[in-house]
Amino acid sequence: MVKRNPNMAKLQSGYLFPEIARRKKEFLARNPKAKIISLGIGDTTQPITPHITKGLHNEVSRLGTRKGYSGYGAEQGLEELRNKIAEKLYNGIIKGDEVFVSDGAKPDTARLQVLFGSNATIAVQDPSYPVYVDSSVILGQTGNYNQRKSQFDGIEYMECVPENNFFPDLKKTKKTDIIFFCNPNNPTGAAVNRRQLKEIVDFARRNKSILVYDSAYSQFITDKKLPKSIYEIEGSKEVAIEISSFSKPIGFTGVRLGWAVIPNELLFEDGTPVNKDWNRIATTLFNGASNIAQHGALNALDAKGMKEMRQTISYYLENAGIIRDSMEKLGYEVYGGRHAPYLWMRVPGKTSWEAFEEFLGKANVLTTPGVGFGPSGEGFLRLSALDHREDVKEAVERIERCMK
Amino acid sequence: MVKRNPNMAKLQSGYLFPEIARRKKEFLARNPKAKIISLGIGDTTQPITPHITKGLHNEVSRLGTRKGYSGYGAEQGLEELRNKIAEKLYNGIIKGDEVFVSDGAKPDTARLQVLFGSNATIAVQDPSYPVYVDSSVILGQTGNYNQRKSQFDGIEYMECVPENNFFPDLKKTKKTDIIFFCNPNNPTGAAVNRRQLKEIVDFARRNKSILVYDSAYSQFITDKKLPKSIYEIEGSKEVAIEISSFSKPIGFTGVRLGWAVIPNELLFEDGTPVNKDWNRIATTLFNGASNIAQHGALNALDAKGMKEMRQTISYYLENAGIIRDSMEKLGYEVYGGRHAPYLWMRVPGKTSWEAFEEFLGKANVLTTPGVGFGPSGEGFLRLSALDHREDVKEAVERIERCMK
Repeated sequence: MVKRNPNMAKLQSGYLFPEIARRKKEFLARNPKAKIISLGIGDTTQPITPHITKGLHNEVSRLGTRKGYSGYGAEQGLEELRNKIAEKLYNGIIKGDEVFVSDGAKPDTARLQVLFGSNATIAVQDPSYPVYVDSSVILGQTGNYNQRKSQFDGIEYMECVPENNFFPDLKKTKKTDIIFFCNPNNPTGAAVNRRQLKEIVDFARRNKSILVYDSAYSQFITDKKLPKSIYEIEGSKEVAIEISSFSKPIGFTGVRLGWAVIPNELLFEDGTPVNKDWNRIATTLFNGASNIAQHGALNALDAKGMKEMRQTISYYLENAGIIRDSMEKLGYEVYGGRHAPYLWMRVPGKTSWEAFEEFLGKANVLTTPGVGFGPSGEGFLRLSALDHREDVKEAVERIERCMK
Repeated sequence: MVKRNPNMAKLQSGYLFPEIARRKKEFLARNPKAKIISLGIGDTTQPITPHITKGLHNEVSRLGTRKGYSGYGAEQGLEELRNKIAEKLYNGIIKGDEVFVSDGAKPDTARLQVLFGSNATIAVQDPSYPVYVDSSVILGQTGNYNQRKSQFDGIEYMECVPENNFFPDLKKTKKTDIIFFCNPNNPTGAAVNRRQLKEIVDFARRNKSILVYDSAYSQFITDKKLPKSIYEIEGSKEVAIEISSFSKPIGFTGVRLGWAVIPNELLFEDGTPVNKDWNRIATTLFNGASNIAQHGALNALDAKGMKEMRQTISYYLENAGIIRDSMEKLGYEVYGGRHAPYLWMRVPGKTSWEAFEEFLGKANVLTTPGVGFGPSGEGFLRLSALDHREDVKEAVERIERCMK
């Protein structure tokens, strides 16, 4: 038969979250009565709010009528939505035609890797969202997995740990074609300040790198002094792509909607605008995001929808406060959770997976092992604050009771 | 700055349909009063039918409630939908766990190319849906575009023309890793019989190729003797992937929903099940299709929904009959349109783009130039029957009046 793609063989075990799901299933098979609460995968739980739901319903109704029906939309998204994203979420710093609506930041990451091709080199924060690394491996940009380092050869891992305030030492960072930078960070929950973000942009400019700035959690930033978008930094348009998502702020994890911003100023070495090639990728390998989802997002960006969005985010951030207080009370060293729905917690004397098993076994609480996000995540757990309030409360009570 | 992906530079001009849209826009700028009717891009126009709309509404309503809300779904799709596709559309020949729900056949094609990797070689029908070729180029599986042949070096083009009844001469076809085969065919509208389909399967088995069978139009097959699915052919499970779509049969072109079937029996040379790697791609580079769309499809596969689907398809096929009768009356040599929403028409003495411009200029009717689907499409136009009945009627009347 056909030869297996050798890059697929390089990947390590399963993608993190399916692996957690597998262990959960196994645990439930052994303990069928256990009531597991998940502070694990960053999955939303709050219902979609009324004004946004209305936007979804209205489009479904239109699609059921002769006059309101529409077929293929523009692969780049509804013009109205592109403009509204530019205006409402970027205060017009970028233009609507630089916004490309998609089915989410994860598939956009995959398509960006296809755009960059197999000769590109990448840098990632360590720890980081696993998709940057795995997509790089699949596209053939890396060497093999190096068991000793717990890293893929050919990827530049930028250590982000409490000791450096989760901000990489750029003097030690090698030049790469692409830098993935997630802020507020998944998994550490850290949010950079303006000076740090400028440092990253300047670094990309000096190295002539493309900075892929993942702002999927930017709506969780509550401190107005902190930058939300990369385009708040001068000179960023010539180096930065921003990918983002409606998943967390409006509960569209299952509805699927995100976007990428590719400024007109961003060029490849030969002068080709990056968004020209991205447009080709969007039209050739993708067929646009669901029209229904896009109409929900249009409502989300109304004044009414924005208010609902802020309420949803406040709810999750209050959850994060509850978890942080409790874990600190138990003596854990806890980071994040102020501008992100994630808390990052050191588990002294244990590996991440040992701690994962302990939380699951003793408190029946699902967490995410930090090492799943990269070698610098070893010895940490990520806790997600995206659950129902009563579940969050019960989870922390159980942990306080069972794990003192 | 970063080097441009050299594979992107190999692509020829724009993707076909954006190019047509550009020419249409130019034409309208010169002729602002012209009322263009499109028999061009295969875009659906009939409203989504009541029972399917109800499925969409119900899920939106659920998502707005605490109890009914769900976040991330399984990346492979709702189990209920996977099973229902297997049962209702494949009569149980395949199993639910072999079905992977997606946002459409086009993005699935792109992900399949990522799965196969840059060392894979492909064969395509000529003419064929441009995405097979373009995705192959983008992934680096091909050489450069050969201007003399109007083909990419490294791709095996299987000529499908009236002279061979649109069925490739497999004795002349070189062995490749992957064979893309679309049936009923886009653009020619040809549907193969069981003997021919067996010939293709046997060819793939002999060559140890993977056959990617695109059945996006299979619901248009009205002759019960003709095969709809590749899995009706014995021995196909060890060689064939089937990709398919809800776009055309239920008007989900903008809602976005499709699926891929990867049988458990299909293995790579080293024994790795292809669907193991596909599952990794689906979970790592994709995040599942919209839950709203999936619930629409669940209703579509109810008895009521299936009846609505058949009505929609009959409507489009009647359109095809009207176009065919008219074009034949004008003396054109017309193919397809009996088991597909496309007609394939020879335009003697003209190139495809000349005929495209003539139909646009004289009758203000948009068509698709055959050469856009491959060099063997030169001298043909594709007409789509997916428009409103009155527009189809007006289009053919105009053509009859203006182009005699």
